[in-house]
Amino acid sequence: MDSRRDFLQKLTLSAMGLPLISLSGSPDMAAFYREPYEGPVLRVAIMGLGSYGTRVAEAMQDSQKAKLVGVISGTPSKIKDWQSKYNIPAKNCYNYENFDQIKDNPDIDAVYVITPNGLHHDQVIRVAKAGKHAICEKPMAVNAKEGQEMVDACKKANVKLLVGYRMHFEPKTLEIIRMREAGEFGKIMFFQGLTGFKIGDPNQWRLNKELAGGGAMMDIGIYSVNGARYMVGEEPVWVTAQETKTDPDKFKAGVDETIQFQLGFPSGAVASCLSTYSMGNLDRFFLNGQQGYAELHPATGYGPIKGRTHKGELNQPHQTHQTVQMDEMAGIILESKKPVVPVDGEEGLKDLKIIDAIYLAANTGEKVSLKL
Amino acid sequence: MDSRRDFLQKLTLSAMGLPLISLSGSPDMAAFYREPYEGPVLRVAIMGLGSYGTRVAEAMQDSQKAKLVGVISGTPSKIKDWQSKYNIPAKNCYNYENFDQIKDNPDIDAVYVITPNGLHHDQVIRVAKAGKHAICEKPMAVNAKEGQEMVDACKKANVKLLVGYRMHFEPKTLEIIRMREAGEFGKIMFFQGLTGFKIGDPNQWRLNKELAGGGAMMDIGIYSVNGARYMVGEEPVWVTAQETKTDPDKFKAGVDETIQFQLGFPSGAVASCLSTYSMGNLDRFFLNGQQGYAELHPATGYGPIKGRTHKGELNQPHQTHQTVQMDEMAGIILESKKPVVPVDGEEGLKDLKIIDAIYLAANTGEKVSLKL
Repeated sequence: MDSRRDFLQKLTLSAMGLPLISLSGSPDMAAFYREPYEGPVLRVAIMGLGSYGTRVAEAMQDSQKAKLVGVISGTPSKIKDWQSKYNIPAKNCYNYENFDQIKDNPDIDAVYVITPNGLHHDQVIRVAKAGKHAICEKPMAVNAKEGQEMVDACKKANVKLLVGYRMHFEPKTLEIIRMREAGEFGKIMFFQGLTGFKIGDPNQWRLNKELAGGGAMMDIGIYSVNGARYMVGEEPVWVTAQETKTDPDKFKAGVDETIQFQLGFPSGAVASCLSTYSMGNLDRFFLNGQQGYAELHPATGYGPIKGRTHKGELNQPHQTHQTVQMDEMAGIILESKKPVVPVDGEEGLKDLKIIDAIYLAANTGEKVSLKL
Repeated sequence: MDSRRDFLQKLTLSAMGLPLISLSGSPDMAAFYREPYEGPVLRVAIMGLGSYGTRVAEAMQDSQKAKLVGVISGTPSKIKDWQSKYNIPAKNCYNYENFDQIKDNPDIDAVYVITPNGLHHDQVIRVAKAGKHAICEKPMAVNAKEGQEMVDACKKANVKLLVGYRMHFEPKTLEIIRMREAGEFGKIMFFQGLTGFKIGDPNQWRLNKELAGGGAMMDIGIYSVNGARYMVGEEPVWVTAQETKTDPDKFKAGVDETIQFQLGFPSGAVASCLSTYSMGNLDRFFLNGQQGYAELHPATGYGPIKGRTHKGELNQPHQTHQTVQMDEMAGIILESKKPVVPVDGEEGLKDLKIIDAIYLAANTGEKVSLKL
């Protein structure tokens, strides 16, 4: 749809007093009429007002079931900007010192933690102790030990813990999973995930071991780790890995630049993956079964995702991932809905166990056994 | 070109008494006029009249510089068929007992050995001792020790030894190599080769360790091994590998079903490859540089090869690989021409050294260093 038609349709629907959802991104750009929603709404505070936090906030404006109502930030000027942009009352604004007081705020149901990886553990546990549901960006933590503590803390506090796996709600991804479960690819034999990009500014937190917990693996490699699991539909039982560093000045000790890793699954299927901070726009999934295949390219970007199977192009329409994610997560938290692929703390913990094993395998050269 | 036009053009050119070359395979099918060739011709005997030998014989009918003049086979009825089909005189026909007598035959320049891998070593050495040039199907032998002995024997006998690397003459492949050398991809960072097919009849020689020297690696995996080298343009310095066997009845000890292997190169580039006998029609190459990429799919089949780079589709016309190979190999043997990518015994030996290392790495779980 061209922008003029898009505009006219929006105008018409608005004039009719009908709610709109914008499905952004060419070539699937479109505006759809949706039934008015009158069910429960998840009232969310975002912790961490960086670029991804901003993206989530924007996407949440189109969400029916989740509403941005609060912020937690260490930067007063950002809080001010967000307050005026999203109409957030002062009583719903916190900083990193006082956000435990959120426990006394009846107008916030959940906190979405979108801060550097190394901070997630303590922050999520504080959110849980404040009695609020936690949504945590991935990786959920920097190792499985931390992840387990977060899962335990949320269980103890009787709050839900979800991890920001937006691809678990992506329509082309879900179609491939549906086809696999229907046996349309035959026995699954191979998954390949290539995920990477060329990272810029050497001073950003993503290249700081303390804050990031690692390098590319913690940022973009986790898409291949997680993708291997939801595409193959099994949990891996072994992992091998090889690390390559071409720029040790930029990628210091403990900050991985490029890691190749391989996974073996109980059925005999294998996965071959690449995680890198030194190659531009690498974003490819390939799933091969004995009767067919699927490929996604791009596979995990913000979309539109593109892909095909042995049966032809996938043409499920694109919808802003974070909008769908927030709608679905509201359903999970408020109505105990079950997603096709889990997005809970246990799911995040499995990825961390694999990442721990990948680092161990890369460091020792050993094949590492896994039991998830 | 449709078949009617093709037919008419052939008719016209034939009526003009002009030689034709058929460029087979849709969608690039075409017939081209070629200048009459009056240079030296390589007179070739084929050893091993199986399905691939038959394919080479057919392709050689369109070759200008190589001519099929003799056969070596253990099956008298096959020899008879080939004699009548290709007009081969009885004096140019041999069996596996008497083919050493080829040394007394002035009408044969070279023998193309197209027999099971495990036989190449002894047969090529006998060809060399008979003073004839040897062309050997790949893998040149079943390990590097054998390969080295073959190289040495041919050197000693002062005959050339070439290995049937038909992809080294394939136009789309060569275009990617040209682009890489011109810096159009920037610094090369990653190669991926996925090569495999689902093997049928469990009783064929390819699943017999003695005759095949291994399993999928020796048959289809070598395309990824070799492809990694000509696509990256460097020699690997380390290898790791993981073997998976889902059907030990079909794939006995020493016969590999699925091997994933990784290569590291001096520049820091890495390769991630898959060799398998249990997945249908897996034939994908992907080369990623810091400024661009290339992909081929299919990458190594009999063609047409299809591919694209960051600049768009590759559209070099398809020509029967084995026809081009035989023309080019005649030029190498008779006129000492230098191909863009070598096809000599040393080239074949490098692949065998890597394959030895892959098997060692898969068996021990160790990272194996290489010096080629």
